[in-house]
Amino acid sequence: MTQRIVSVLFLISSLWLVSCTPTVNHSKRMDSNKTVHTILNRKSVRSYAKKLVEKEKVDTLLRAAMSAPTAVNKQPWAFVVIDNPQILEKLSTSLPYAKMAASAPMAIVVCGDLNKTLRGQDDPYWPLDCSAASENLLLAAESMGLGAVWTAVYPEKDRTEIVSEILSLPEYIVSFNLIPVGYPKHPEEPKDKFKEENIHYNQW
Amino acid sequence: MTQRIVSVLFLISSLWLVSCTPTVNHSKRMDSNKTVHTILNRKSVRSYAKKLVEKEKVDTLLRAAMSAPTAVNKQPWAFVVIDNPQILEKLSTSLPYAKMAASAPMAIVVCGDLNKTLRGQDDPYWPLDCSAASENLLLAAESMGLGAVWTAVYPEKDRTEIVSEILSLPEYIVSFNLIPVGYPKHPEEPKDKFKEENIHYNQW
Repeated sequence: MTQRIVSVLFLISSLWLVSCTPTVNHSKRMDSNKTVHTILNRKSVRSYAKKLVEKEKVDTLLRAAMSAPTAVNKQPWAFVVIDNPQILEKLSTSLPYAKMAASAPMAIVVCGDLNKTLRGQDDPYWPLDCSAASENLLLAAESMGLGAVWTAVYPEKDRTEIVSEILSLPEYIVSFNLIPVGYPKHPEEPKDKFKEENIHYNQW
Repeated sequence: MTQRIVSVLFLISSLWLVSCTPTVNHSKRMDSNKTVHTILNRKSVRSYAKKLVEKEKVDTLLRAAMSAPTAVNKQPWAFVVIDNPQILEKLSTSLPYAKMAASAPMAIVVCGDLNKTLRGQDDPYWPLDCSAASENLLLAAESMGLGAVWTAVYPEKDRTEIVSEILSLPEYIVSFNLIPVGYPKHPEEPKDKFKEENIHYNQW
C-alpha cells in the first residue's frame, strides 16, 4: 500500500514539475523573454473585430506612452482618446492614410505640447519624444492582444490642421499621429526586418 | 488507508493549484503583463557594473531595434556597436552629455541612413523611425536586466560631426543618438510620469 502511495505521489509530482517549468525557447526570437517577444511580434494592424477596448486597457496604453524617455524630462505631450464613431469617421475620411480609423472602436491621437518643450515652438526634440511614447503605446497594445497602427500626421501641415480642427486643439498643441486601436480581426504575422548588413562594429 | 490517500492527494493538488496560478496583480502598474512591466520600469541608467554584455544580448538589442515600425517600411537605419574602450572614451570626452560612455562596457550608436529614407536627404521621418528603434532597444535592455540611456546626438550638428569623425561614418549616415549599455551598478527606480491632465476624450 505504501508503495502505491509513493507511486501516486511520484506521478503527481512529475505532473506538477512539468506543468510549472517555464518553456525555454532558444529560437532566435528569444520568445522566453515576454518583452522581447512582444517587440518582435508587434505588427501594424489595420482591421479590427467588432469589440470595444476595455477602459482598463486604454488606461494602460496611456500609462505606457507616458513612461517613454523625453529630452531633459520635459514630457512634452498630450493624448486625445477618441471613441466617438462620428469623430473616428471624420478623421478617417479627412486624413489620407487613416481609412481604417472608421472601423476601429477607438483611436489615440498623440500630440506635442509646444508649451512644454525644451526649446519652445521650434524644438526639434518633441517629435522624437512623441515617437518613443507612440512605440510604447503600440507595444503595450500588442502585449494585451490588441492591434494598432501608427498613421503619420506631423509634420504634414495639411494633416495637422485637419486634426486640429476636428479635435478643437489649441494652437500650442500639435497632433503628431493617429493610432487606431482594436482587437485584430484576423491573426497577423510581423515582418522580419532584421538585416545583418545594418550592423557595424566600432567603425563603419 | 483510502482516506489517507485522498487527503494526501487533496493536499498535493491544492499545492499544485496555488503554485501554478499566475499572480493576478491589480495594481496600477499592471505588473502581471511582463511587457507593460518593462515599459513602466524602464529608466535611464548611467552607472554600470564592471561586467561585459553577452554577445547574445547585444544581438537581441539590435534585433529589437530593427523591429520598430518605419514610415512606408523604409527601415532607414544603421547601428554601430562600440565595445572598444578607447572609442568609448573618445566619444565620452567629445560629446557634451555622454560622460557615462567611458565607464560602460559598450554603446550602440543608432544612425539614420539617408540613402534609404522616404524623401531623400531632407526626409522628416527617419528621426521618428530611429526614435522608435531606440525605444525598442531601451526596452529590450531593461527586460534583460541591462541598463541603458539615450544620449542625444541629432539634430545637434556639432555632435553629429564629432561622431561621424570618430566612427568614420560616410556622408549619407547621420548619427542619431549614443546609447551606452551595461549591467546597472545599483538598483534604480523609474520615474512615475503619468499625469491625468495629459489625457483628453474626443475633444480638447
